Amino acid sequence: MEFYKPLIWATLPAMKTVLVLGAGRSSSSLIAYLLSVANQFSWKIIVADFSLAVAKQKVDSSPAGSAIHFNIEHEEASKSTIASADLVISLLPPHFHIRVAQHCLSLGKHLITASYVSDEMKNLDEEARSSGLIFLNECGLDPGIDHMSAMQLIDSIHALGGKVISFESFTGGLIAPETDPENPWRYKFTWNPRNVVTAGQGIAKFRHEGKLKYIPYQQLFTRISHVSVPGYGTFEGYANRDSLKYIDLYALKDVKTMLRGTLRNYGFCSAWNILVQLGCCDDTYLLEDVASMTHRDFLDAFLDGSKTEATEDKIMRQFSITSDSTEMKRLTWSGFFTDEKVGLTKGTPAQVLEHILNKKWSLAPGDKDMIVMIHKVIADFQGKTKTIQSSLVVKGDDEAHTAMAKTVGLPMGIAAKLVLQNQITSRGVVIPVSAEFYNPILNELKTLGVEMLEH
Amino acid sequence: MEFYKPLIWATLPAMKTVLVLGAGRSSSSLIAYLLSVANQFSWKIIVADFSLAVAKQKVDSSPAGSAIHFNIEHEEASKSTIASADLVISLLPPHFHIRVAQHCLSLGKHLITASYVSDEMKNLDEEARSSGLIFLNECGLDPGIDHMSAMQLIDSIHALGGKVISFESFTGGLIAPETDPENPWRYKFTWNPRNVVTAGQGIAKFRHEGKLKYIPYQQLFTRISHVSVPGYGTFEGYANRDSLKYIDLYALKDVKTMLRGTLRNYGFCSAWNILVQLGCCDDTYLLEDVASMTHRDFLDAFLDGSKTEATEDKIMRQFSITSDSTEMKRLTWSGFFTDEKVGLTKGTPAQVLEHILNKKWSLAPGDKDMIVMIHKVIADFQGKTKTIQSSLVVKGDDEAHTAMAKTVGLPMGIAAKLVLQNQITSRGVVIPVSAEFYNPILNELKTLGVEMLEH
Repeated sequence: MEFYKPLIWATLPAMKTVLVLGAGRSSSSLIAYLLSVANQFSWKIIVADFSLAVAKQKVDSSPAGSAIHFNIEHEEASKSTIASADLVISLLPPHFHIRVAQHCLSLGKHLITASYVSDEMKNLDEEARSSGLIFLNECGLDPGIDHMSAMQLIDSIHALGGKVISFESFTGGLIAPETDPENPWRYKFTWNPRNVVTAGQGIAKFRHEGKLKYIPYQQLFTRISHVSVPGYGTFEGYANRDSLKYIDLYALKDVKTMLRGTLRNYGFCSAWNILVQLGCCDDTYLLEDVASMTHRDFLDAFLDGSKTEATEDKIMRQFSITSDSTEMKRLTWSGFFTDEKVGLTKGTPAQVLEHILNKKWSLAPGDKDMIVMIHKVIADFQGKTKTIQSSLVVKGDDEAHTAMAKTVGLPMGIAAKLVLQNQITSRGVVIPVSAEFYNPILNELKTLGVEMLEH
Repeated sequence: MEFYKPLIWATLPAMKTVLVLGAGRSSSSLIAYLLSVANQFSWKIIVADFSLAVAKQKVDSSPAGSAIHFNIEHEEASKSTIASADLVISLLPPHFHIRVAQHCLSLGKHLITASYVSDEMKNLDEEARSSGLIFLNECGLDPGIDHMSAMQLIDSIHALGGKVISFESFTGGLIAPETDPENPWRYKFTWNPRNVVTAGQGIAKFRHEGKLKYIPYQQLFTRISHVSVPGYGTFEGYANRDSLKYIDLYALKDVKTMLRGTLRNYGFCSAWNILVQLGCCDDTYLLEDVASMTHRDFLDAFLDGSKTEATEDKIMRQFSITSDSTEMKRLTWSGFFTDEKVGLTKGTPAQVLEHILNKKWSLAPGDKDMIVMIHKVIADFQGKTKTIQSSLVVKGDDEAHTAMAKTVGLPMGIAAKLVLQNQITSRGVVIPVSAEFYNPILNELKTLGVEMLEH
């Protein structure tokens, strides 16, 4: 009962406290936003991270902010930190959200995350609702802005008496055209590199022309869509894990084609597919002798043929590609054929691959990333079909204030403001697919330079 | 302490009891062997199965045998059944062996299985040894006869001062040439169909020309070896899961190439690879709408392209094959392009695939299976290299007394005899890689028509 005392105080209009858990890579824009509006709303912003130094750096000299050490493994300390807040935004790795949510439930705090709703999280829905709390998830970029912009579009079609018969949506975190012009992948790590390396493992499920379709990992990067984004050219899109569950969430009962996917620059997928086919992205077993392994050894361990044949020749033979192919250019640029030591003492194939890629794919000073999102909707209006596209392109300011950090963080910051200002009536475990979320959040994002364009 | 009483009686020379747990598909030859020698050695054979009818059928009218109901989930009943035996042979599904082994340990009984030593089983080694018990595993065909014949060959090379520099071994459970001549796969289910459908998932590790090599599932059926067996033509071999651990077990410290694999008939792998590539062998998620699914729907759910394009055309396009290709012949023969209902109400892709295949791949009356095993060893004798091959081909008598049942069951039966006659000194958790196993077991197998031929 002790823990409820601060809540009583916090409900006084005087001061509200937002607790941000995790001050890593994608927190900068969220924290900057919260600090920038803190004075106006009499907020206190607590930034909590395992590394106090990282938390302090994010708060900088802002008088509204304070930085503290936080370790979710320390149960009692975590509870008292959460007890001091009115609303918690968790940027911790997704599997920790459930522990934060349980504390929020017992302490009566609202919660916002940018992660997919897990089954465990879903199970807290009724309890959160009956406690008058909102646990808002999937409120970042993808999932997040994609849901909101899709639902704004879909609701407007329904309002005009239309039926959505096809919905395809793609999002990608890429690099800006002016960054790294010699990088043939047109890609760098702008979020968790481990997730990039293991992306697509499992099965992709979607609906196509009224039929259920399944794509296994081994086919994912060969079964790509070509996606044109006005003003930015053509990209490659591969299917995300489960598009089917969004048929109900988006209220698309008549939809014949339903596909959500990830965007990459042209030529990425066929080169990445070589790494997938060889088994380089496998995260389930440890390789032997990693300490003595070179980049070349790494690739060679997955290749057929005699030890007298060059690694390059083995790849070209196996995949029927030439030495000037777009695939070989990418692999060569990434340094796979060098005799440089990997530099790890142990690791799974995925860990070794991430380590090699990171040597060229980590953002350098001045690098700008770029988010590209596009929805393509075909709707039927009394027998007449109409195709509507809307797209979003956001560039980062630099390697710290990335487009990824903006588009993941700002929706959560705005949502936090709306919740604390009692402008959100939803309670329980929710995602931002209704107008009370998407209208104010998309409107404010526009003022911050994050805007969907319809064409 | 109650349980030890029968043990004291059983150590009298008068009568020994062998308990066979599981009377399924591959138990017939083992049980027939044990019953045939039971009188000579004053043995009692108890055949225990979940289905009393199945157990009774296997014992038939033999006076030395008795059939009982057995359920490993019933702890107390299992214990008292095991308490009544001197030696237990477990043919239960492999994950149950550890529970049988724990009972054997507490009751002081020897144990024989044909399954790979699990880590849990390995952990019982010291306790079994100090209790004077032998827990003999991997004493069937593959693993089993492969270990014994390999070690007999390797030990003879070492005895002559040779060093093994390359060891390759392949085993396959196929069908006899005279069976099902129109079946283009030249294959039927002769053991657990589920294991056939999911075979090869995970990573295959081996050594090739001194280098470690890894083959992921998505490459396994394209990276095949061509394996000639004198008198039987050329087969296809694909790599088994972990060949590396046999380098130590076989005492092959100088070996540069070490590969254990599975044999299939010519043309099998490229057709099977289509099912692998499409994701039809995935056992990790449930398909939707299985109740209404036809064979054709099943394949089509994994294929790219419009609903107006025929399933056959999609496959031919995706895999660059023609309608008269060996792959299309196999898929067509298996009925994948028919509009027959699958006949399940739910299932993973692997379960649906197994169900479809089983319609043509279950053994029919009169069908004969065929086991093929071959070792190819290159040895160095003071600078001169010599290649030695030895092979084994065993045909089944009919669909019940299969070559699989003979080659899996007879080694365990002979091993049981050796243990009960105190001709085996090894104790603890062991596999049959030493001469005290392989000499008497291979010798007796020869008299039963199971013989390796050297060439």
